[in-house]
Amino acid sequence: MSKQRRSRRQFLKSSITTAAGMAWVAGRGSPAGAQTAAAPAAPARAARLKFAAIGLNHGHIGGQVDSVKRGGGQLVSFYAKEPDLADAFAKRYPEAKRARSEQEILEDPEIKLVVSASIPDERAPLGIQVMKHGKDFMVDKPGMTTLDQLAQARRVQAETKRIYSILYSERLENRATVKAGELVKAGAIGRVIQTIGMGPHRMTPKTRPAWFFEKEHYGGILTDIASHQFDQFLFFTGSNQAEIVASQVGNVAHPQWPGLEDFGDVMLHGNG
Amino acid sequence: MSKQRRSRRQFLKSSITTAAGMAWVAGRGSPAGAQTAAAPAAPARAARLKFAAIGLNHGHIGGQVDSVKRGGGQLVSFYAKEPDLADAFAKRYPEAKRARSEQEILEDPEIKLVVSASIPDERAPLGIQVMKHGKDFMVDKPGMTTLDQLAQARRVQAETKRIYSILYSERLENRATVKAGELVKAGAIGRVIQTIGMGPHRMTPKTRPAWFFEKEHYGGILTDIASHQFDQFLFFTGSNQAEIVASQVGNVAHPQWPGLEDFGDVMLHGNG
Repeated sequence: MSKQRRSRRQFLKSSITTAAGMAWVAGRGSPAGAQTAAAPAAPARAARLKFAAIGLNHGHIGGQVDSVKRGGGQLVSFYAKEPDLADAFAKRYPEAKRARSEQEILEDPEIKLVVSASIPDERAPLGIQVMKHGKDFMVDKPGMTTLDQLAQARRVQAETKRIYSILYSERLENRATVKAGELVKAGAIGRVIQTIGMGPHRMTPKTRPAWFFEKEHYGGILTDIASHQFDQFLFFTGSNQAEIVASQVGNVAHPQWPGLEDFGDVMLHGNG
Repeated sequence: MSKQRRSRRQFLKSSITTAAGMAWVAGRGSPAGAQTAAAPAAPARAARLKFAAIGLNHGHIGGQVDSVKRGGGQLVSFYAKEPDLADAFAKRYPEAKRARSEQEILEDPEIKLVVSASIPDERAPLGIQVMKHGKDFMVDKPGMTTLDQLAQARRVQAETKRIYSILYSERLENRATVKAGELVKAGAIGRVIQTIGMGPHRMTPKTRPAWFFEKEHYGGILTDIASHQFDQFLFFTGSNQAEIVASQVGNVAHPQWPGLEDFGDVMLHGNG
C-alpha cells in the first residue's frame, strides 16, 4: 500500500469519525436522522484534501459536504446537470467553483475525492468513473441500486484500489447511534444477537421530484430506506456478511404511483 | 345451532371480554402481560356455568380461572397429576373439589367447561377428550404444539361442535392492548399494515420444571412465546389467515439445554 493510499484511507476514516460526533451541523439542514442530539461545534481541521461534489439530487449532499469539510476537506468545485440544484448549492457553498461538466471535475488532478448524492441508479456509474480517474468516492445511501452495479463497482475498486464509501447518516451522523455503538463495544449489553430497525419515511410528495417514486431510479424501498438498517445490523452484531432470509415489499396505499413501494419488511441472518 | 350451544358461545365471549377489562386481578398473580394497568374491580357475575380445571403446570391457570369466575363461572373441581401443584391450587381456590382423576371431571355431566394450563404438548390430547365428553375447552397459549395436533383438534371440534378456545393473555388480559384494539377499530391510525411484536421472556431456570427447556414439550420458542404475537398480528390487521413468510430460531447462549430455543424471529403475511 502506497503512502498516498494510506493517508487517503486515514483521511476518510477520520472524516467520518468526526462527522459522527458533529451530527448536529448536518441536522440543521435536512437529514432527519441527525436531528436527535446536539453537540458543541468543533473547529474544522486545516484543509488537507481537495474534494468536489457531483450530483446534488438529494438533500443529504449538505451533510456529506459538511462532514468532509469538518474532517479537513477543502471543497473546490461542484457540478449538477440541474441548474436550480446548482444554484442552491452555490449559495450555500460560495467558496466552490461551478464546473461546466462532470468531466472537468474528473480530470482535475488536484481533486482527490468526489462526494455525490445523485439519483440512486446513477451513483454506481458515476463512482466507477470517479475511481477510474484515480479519485475516491463517497456517496449517499443507497450506494447503488442493483447487484450488477455492485459487482461492477467492486471490480473497478479492485482494479483501481480507490475507495468507494457510503455515508450511512443514521449510524455515522446520529449521536445516539454512535453512543449505542460505544456501549455495545464496551460490553454493556453483552453479545448483540438481533436488531430491529424501523424506517418510517416522510412522503412529502409535493416537494419530491418524480424519481423518488420510480423504482428503477430509487431502487425500491429496501434498497433505499432499509440500507440504513442493514448497515446498523452489520455494525451492531459485528457481522461482515449477512444473507436475506426473506423479504416482502408492496404498494399498499398509493396506486397513483405504481412504481412506489410504500411498505417493506426484511429478515437477515448475519455471521457476527 | 341449539340454544344451549349459543348460550355457551355467548358465555365464553362475555367471559373473555370481561377478563380483558379486568386484567389487574390476574395481574396480581403472575402473568407479566397483565401487570401494565390497573382498574377498579367489577363484581363477579352470578354463577351461570360450572367449570373445572385440569392441568396446572403453568401459572397462567390462575388468570384463566379468575377470568371465567369474573364472567360468571363457578369453579367446582380440579385435577393435577402433580400433588404439589394440586396443593397450591387447593389453597388458592378452597371452593373447588379435588378430583381423583381427569376422568372424574370428564364424566361429570354438570361441568360444561374445562380450563387447562397443562404442559403444552399435552393440551390438544386433553382438549380433544374434553370435547368428546361434550364440554368446551379453554386453554393457555400455546393451544397446541404441532400441526398434527391442530388438525386433530379441528376434526374433533367439527364433529362435536364444542369450543376449543385459547386465552391469549397479552391481548385479552392486557388493558393497553385492549385499548389499542379499540383505537384501531375506531380508525384512529387508519389501516394497520404491520405489527412488530417483541417477546423477551424471563429465563428463571431455577424455578422452572424441565419441560420448559424441552422442545418436544413446550413446542419451541415461536409456538410458545410468539403465539401471542401471531394472535396480535391477526387481530390488529383484521386477518383471519396468515402465512409464515420465513422464520429462524436458534439456541444462541444456552448449550447446557440443547432442547431450548432462546432466539426466534418470524415474518408473516396476512389477508387483512
